[in-house]
Amino acid sequence: MEMDLNAQVKKACFLQRLKDFPSKLKDGVTKRIKHVQKFGKDDPRRIIHSIKVGLSLTLVSMLYYVRPLYNSFGVSGMWAILTVVVVSEFTVGGTLSKGLNRAFATLIAGALGVGAVHLARLCGHKGEPIVLGILVFSLGAAATFSRFFPRIKQRYDYGALIFILTFSMVAVSGYRTDEILVIAYQRLSTILIGGTICILVSIFVFPVWAGEDLHKMVANNIIKLANSIEGFDGEYFPSSEKTSKETNSSVREYKSILTSKSTEDTLANLARWEPGHGRFRLRHPWTKYLKIAGLVRQCAIHFEVLNGYVLSDAKAPQDFISKIQEPCSIMSREAGEALKDIAKSIKTMSRYHVCVNTHIKNSKNAIENLRLALKLSFPETEKDLLEIIPGVTMASTLIDIVSYVEKISEAVDEFSVLAHFKENLDPKLSPELGQHHLLHKGTVKPVLEGDNEEECNNSPHVVIAVHDEQPPTVNENNVNLGAEKTTVVV
Amino acid sequence: MEMDLNAQVKKACFLQRLKDFPSKLKDGVTKRIKHVQKFGKDDPRRIIHSIKVGLSLTLVSMLYYVRPLYNSFGVSGMWAILTVVVVSEFTVGGTLSKGLNRAFATLIAGALGVGAVHLARLCGHKGEPIVLGILVFSLGAAATFSRFFPRIKQRYDYGALIFILTFSMVAVSGYRTDEILVIAYQRLSTILIGGTICILVSIFVFPVWAGEDLHKMVANNIIKLANSIEGFDGEYFPSSEKTSKETNSSVREYKSILTSKSTEDTLANLARWEPGHGRFRLRHPWTKYLKIAGLVRQCAIHFEVLNGYVLSDAKAPQDFISKIQEPCSIMSREAGEALKDIAKSIKTMSRYHVCVNTHIKNSKNAIENLRLALKLSFPETEKDLLEIIPGVTMASTLIDIVSYVEKISEAVDEFSVLAHFKENLDPKLSPELGQHHLLHKGTVKPVLEGDNEEECNNSPHVVIAVHDEQPPTVNENNVNLGAEKTTVVV
Repeated sequence: MEMDLNAQVKKACFLQRLKDFPSKLKDGVTKRIKHVQKFGKDDPRRIIHSIKVGLSLTLVSMLYYVRPLYNSFGVSGMWAILTVVVVSEFTVGGTLSKGLNRAFATLIAGALGVGAVHLARLCGHKGEPIVLGILVFSLGAAATFSRFFPRIKQRYDYGALIFILTFSMVAVSGYRTDEILVIAYQRLSTILIGGTICILVSIFVFPVWAGEDLHKMVANNIIKLANSIEGFDGEYFPSSEKTSKETNSSVREYKSILTSKSTEDTLANLARWEPGHGRFRLRHPWTKYLKIAGLVRQCAIHFEVLNGYVLSDAKAPQDFISKIQEPCSIMSREAGEALKDIAKSIKTMSRYHVCVNTHIKNSKNAIENLRLALKLSFPETEKDLLEIIPGVTMASTLIDIVSYVEKISEAVDEFSVLAHFKENLDPKLSPELGQHHLLHKGTVKPVLEGDNEEECNNSPHVVIAVHDEQPPTVNENNVNLGAEKTTVVV
Repeated sequence: MEMDLNAQVKKACFLQRLKDFPSKLKDGVTKRIKHVQKFGKDDPRRIIHSIKVGLSLTLVSMLYYVRPLYNSFGVSGMWAILTVVVVSEFTVGGTLSKGLNRAFATLIAGALGVGAVHLARLCGHKGEPIVLGILVFSLGAAATFSRFFPRIKQRYDYGALIFILTFSMVAVSGYRTDEILVIAYQRLSTILIGGTICILVSIFVFPVWAGEDLHKMVANNIIKLANSIEGFDGEYFPSSEKTSKETNSSVREYKSILTSKSTEDTLANLARWEPGHGRFRLRHPWTKYLKIAGLVRQCAIHFEVLNGYVLSDAKAPQDFISKIQEPCSIMSREAGEALKDIAKSIKTMSRYHVCVNTHIKNSKNAIENLRLALKLSFPETEKDLLEIIPGVTMASTLIDIVSYVEKISEAVDEFSVLAHFKENLDPKLSPELGQHHLLHKGTVKPVLEGDNEEECNNSPHVVIAVHDEQPPTVNENNVNLGAEKTTVVV
């Protein structure tokens, strides 16, 4: 009786599961599809790249489908397919680097291979495989060893690989065929066809430039720093305008910078293979980005320490914090604004040094105020001294960060000369240069902290300006900047 | 006359240069050769790897040289050569990962390719290239898109590439030949031969295990931290025993840890492909290394800040520094010793937690002494407070570092259980466990800082121990440890 019941329950369970299966499967599939869709939407260039590879493959298949082409290349057409699959990289720089490496390595190794076969034939039929074996062994080992050298590894690793491959294949197959020159020629020509198709598709169909990616990445990393420092202000001094919840995510934005070095190195390496494009000329100073990125990372390292103070329970007493709050808040806000202007300067490739320097000057003034505040909040007992240490170290780290912001600004300034940034003459943004054009100016938002800061403030408020001449300049520039910003943001 | 003189001078210069050329060339070549020799000596495994690749190439060439083998495989033998060149990676994990990816991707894509050709033939001769084109385009694009997903990119990137390659080649060449099954079979079997040769050579001829490299790298990074903290002690407090010159290089050793994340990730990823070897079993907790490495990097980040204080001109006044010097020195020395013991624990895969904990306890005691010292050195004027800030923040960073050392110790402790570290029963190293065996003990070096520290001191001094039973244990263990240490050190 009980067993009967058990069996019935089991059967019911099984039937239920069987019933649920289609809906569960549907749910699972829908979820997976949504995930894939989201992944594609996050960076639509991924979808475009996939279609580009499909396109290159279809184009290169014509070597087989079209009779006259097949007659001249035969089965060698598969080398073209192989080349397309292997050379198609996400960025133009990657495709060019692989394509050129492959072409030149095949050319050199092919010639050497033919030479090796001719040399080996001089040694008679018995000696031939021995000579060939020795040559393949020694050249293969030497080329493999060369791949360990950092300079070769960085730029010609793929070339060295293809060199070993081609030399071995030509030399070894030369033992069994007399048509070695025909084979070498067909291999080289089909590789050239495949490589050319890839490079053309890569450059002319929605190109992805490694250089542009690097440019945007460095600018965005600086914006992440700006967001983090502003988020820190809101988190450490929760009495500020922003709520703690709002800033919670932005304060950790710097984290990704700590591990971005290898991506930056790769992009800078690939960017050097790319021809001039858009705003970047052929000899754009790509390596300078790495210098700026290094300083940005150094700054992010100090954020990591600063973040420790946010998370730590051992905070300084509230009355001490409230004393240093104002200068610290000004420091972080001004440093953040300076970073945002530096990022804007990179993104728009125009110089905002007047504006940046104003912000840096303001945050340096705040440092002096902080010193004053520290003096005023001189502890009354020894116990107090120990308690305020976390607050003092936090403030000291903040001062270090400001000095790094200055270093970043200097590096970008130096870079802006090399990269031929255009001088920004917008009177709103460079008060000294544009002052004489303005008779009156004002905003609908009340002026808060003095003229200097207000003039460089980029928050979206309406500027009412009365000019004695050239009235359209301000508005025009403002609109242009806005438009450029939306297209440049990744 | 003057022109004549000029011409004579030019001629003399040219002759001199011509004369110097052979010696200059010789110098250049000698320099280059020495550089290459040094590079090979730095890590002889590079030379061994190059020879291994040469060996694999020679072995696989037999498919051409030996008549019976050539008769059965024909020109397909070149796929074996191609496989050897492409699959031969420096580490066993890399070779296995590429070899298995290549084999399985070829198998699946080959089967799908044959299916695609049969499907296309159903559509008549005119429809065939269209159907094949659509299939190649869509599968190629889909597989390319899949390579963007981090999980696939990490482990199956090469497999996806080979999938596209094989499917396209089989499907497209199926249009022109009826022997498609023969081609697919030959391609698969030669790839299997090439891959097997590579894997066997990689595992059995001087194998380089990615897992072992990761293991050593993590341990060495911890030693670098230890050296840096000891170097810092000597550099910041130059009155210590060591001279500034001696410590100058070691204090910067932590720098390489800041950028080692990508190497660690790659090694951990490859280690998972490796079979059990030496002290590592098949399911060794490789991912745990990344957790420890992450903490080590966090600690190194604090070193970067600490280094800023070493380089900075704004040091606290000498009398303040001399007051906090002793606890700070003890903190750094004990933290350094703890780190060294942790590294030794990893290297020898045995637990030294008693010893490590003693050092951590000592450095925590030093923190309390530091607090006391800070209390005693309570500034007398407001000006003093500002001046001592750099010293206070330095001390605070040092305290953070000690807390990270503790975290690293906990992570290694947790890891040691999972990785089945052997319990260290050496009475010299774990006083609580071994104490009852000892009647008297002493050293030729005078006892300096108390029993606890002395017992964990690993400096090479003679231990005189009188036992009531099992006298050989101590010596045996000591010798074993020494021997193990020399073989394990990279």
